[in-house]
Amino acid sequence: MGKIEEVAAGLRKELKDGKYEPGVRFPSEYELAERFGVNNKTANKAVALLVAEGLLRRGRRGEGTLVKQTSVFPKMFVGYIGSTEHPYYAEVFYGFQQNALNHDCIACAIAPPPEKLGSILRKLKLSGLRGFACSGFGIVDTSPLPVLYLEDQIGSEKYPDFVACDSFQGGYSMMKEILAHGHRDIVMFATLASNPKRMEGMFQALAEAGMENPEKRLFVLTEWRNPDYHIMLTLRKALKQFPGFTAAATASDNIAFHLCRNLEKLGIGWQGKIAVTGFGKVQGISDWLPIATVDQHPFTIGFEAFHALMEMIESGAPQQKHIETELANTHFIPDVR
Amino acid sequence: MGKIEEVAAGLRKELKDGKYEPGVRFPSEYELAERFGVNNKTANKAVALLVAEGLLRRGRRGEGTLVKQTSVFPKMFVGYIGSTEHPYYAEVFYGFQQNALNHDCIACAIAPPPEKLGSILRKLKLSGLRGFACSGFGIVDTSPLPVLYLEDQIGSEKYPDFVACDSFQGGYSMMKEILAHGHRDIVMFATLASNPKRMEGMFQALAEAGMENPEKRLFVLTEWRNPDYHIMLTLRKALKQFPGFTAAATASDNIAFHLCRNLEKLGIGWQGKIAVTGFGKVQGISDWLPIATVDQHPFTIGFEAFHALMEMIESGAPQQKHIETELANTHFIPDVR
Repeated sequence: MGKIEEVAAGLRKELKDGKYEPGVRFPSEYELAERFGVNNKTANKAVALLVAEGLLRRGRRGEGTLVKQTSVFPKMFVGYIGSTEHPYYAEVFYGFQQNALNHDCIACAIAPPPEKLGSILRKLKLSGLRGFACSGFGIVDTSPLPVLYLEDQIGSEKYPDFVACDSFQGGYSMMKEILAHGHRDIVMFATLASNPKRMEGMFQALAEAGMENPEKRLFVLTEWRNPDYHIMLTLRKALKQFPGFTAAATASDNIAFHLCRNLEKLGIGWQGKIAVTGFGKVQGISDWLPIATVDQHPFTIGFEAFHALMEMIESGAPQQKHIETELANTHFIPDVR
Repeated sequence: MGKIEEVAAGLRKELKDGKYEPGVRFPSEYELAERFGVNNKTANKAVALLVAEGLLRRGRRGEGTLVKQTSVFPKMFVGYIGSTEHPYYAEVFYGFQQNALNHDCIACAIAPPPEKLGSILRKLKLSGLRGFACSGFGIVDTSPLPVLYLEDQIGSEKYPDFVACDSFQGGYSMMKEILAHGHRDIVMFATLASNPKRMEGMFQALAEAGMENPEKRLFVLTEWRNPDYHIMLTLRKALKQFPGFTAAATASDNIAFHLCRNLEKLGIGWQGKIAVTGFGKVQGISDWLPIATVDQHPFTIGFEAFHALMEMIESGAPQQKHIETELANTHFIPDVR
């Protein structure tokens, strides 16, 4: 924080704390310069900031600067670029919005249709919003406004600034748990769009357990349009190579759901026998399916994302924060006898 | 729409359609007055509106009015007061946000903790937002800014302006469906907070089928903190009075979920035998439970709410719109043999 912003922040707090009534004369720049130990020019610029924010107003000649109001709401508007429709992202956005409100800011949601993304992003630069959190649109150009991503990686692409769950740790600890229940005949399922860190974490745990070529146990869905059909194809492939598998770790709750459905279609009673695990703890999937999953703490991701975005707006400091994941419902993992 | 706004709207469209390049001189007020058949004062006020919006700017003496930019984004900010965390409300907000974006507006979400609601509402009046949709906070004071409610009624309180599903119709048509499957030994479950219109619709259908005192078949949960416990108490009461009931119509998917869980706890196999019905088609409840429910079309409610709010902002016209409900998953209602 520079000197000007430091003085402005101090004065903002004094105004908010009720030190000055609306309408009264505000201390002169000379008084402020002396009090804060800065030069007149700095004090003048801090006062100009508060005038621009609508807290102070310049009086007529000889009147000096007057207090207009003692706090500004919202302090700023920030945007969330991404869909908020899915229960998981609804929770991320809710955390973001709640922390924005904690800081007297307002969070806007912007979910443009893909074909309009470019034109909306250009318009957003002049919208008055001060910065963005972004999820599900890859890398976006909002320059000169800062953008914070809510994923650490998608495919092989890495985001410069992010707050996201620690996907590697999530995959690693889930696989450790599966191994601890005695499973060795293990397969994994992911899609081409799954965060590869999740699978890397799982491979690492398998390698540490002395299993060779863990990546050969991964079955990848190349298509997600018709998940039930494509997971059936992939499941058949897995069953052919590992006919007696006792654990199936997946890269998402959604895959786990379709996997369970297809195991049942094939007449394979998996409950209490095969350890199917998900990823995400998505409200409406893992709440009703008897599977263990990885809780990514979506509310916390959104909540911390607002904080990180503020840092970017105020100081431009790079933000790379991992939120720890947590295993949920591990009691659904059966022991291998 | 007044004359001034009419002229402004026409000019806004011309600017957006690319009739004038940024930087060129805009037609004089005299020219505009003649073209639109209004007096100079009206033309002047329409131009002043566009200046205030940032589309035009006053040039130096003799330069006239110049085109600053050809469209403004966002045209306005609107607010959604209410939690967007629950999957149902996430979808309502998503519809609201999508339609806002269709109209070059930006939707903000504001979910204050109840104890801060009053102070946030006061602050919102000066926030620059132009109007609000509101859900789950009862009647709120946002005057002079308009507010549209996303419920038609809660308890006995009626909202002045609303877009909401037709609760009466939903309850009525679900009960008609239950009756059509041959059920006569019917009970109903609601909470004190349930929209009474839902139950009134159910009563109406029962009355039309010649059943006397349908309200005696309604069991109300007085407490929702510990739903599993309280629905068990209420279920036992219902079973005592109607030990052989074949249908249980509830006022929400949530009640239906806890009801199913408790029937199972009591060893009562309900699937394929007792018609349990929900209300809401909440993603993550009725998607996974084999029950019929009432689809309230939350996306459409949010989508239409933006439209209605625009009308309130632009013309102040009262808005009372019911969105039709639709029965979903009625194949789960067993026939009475």
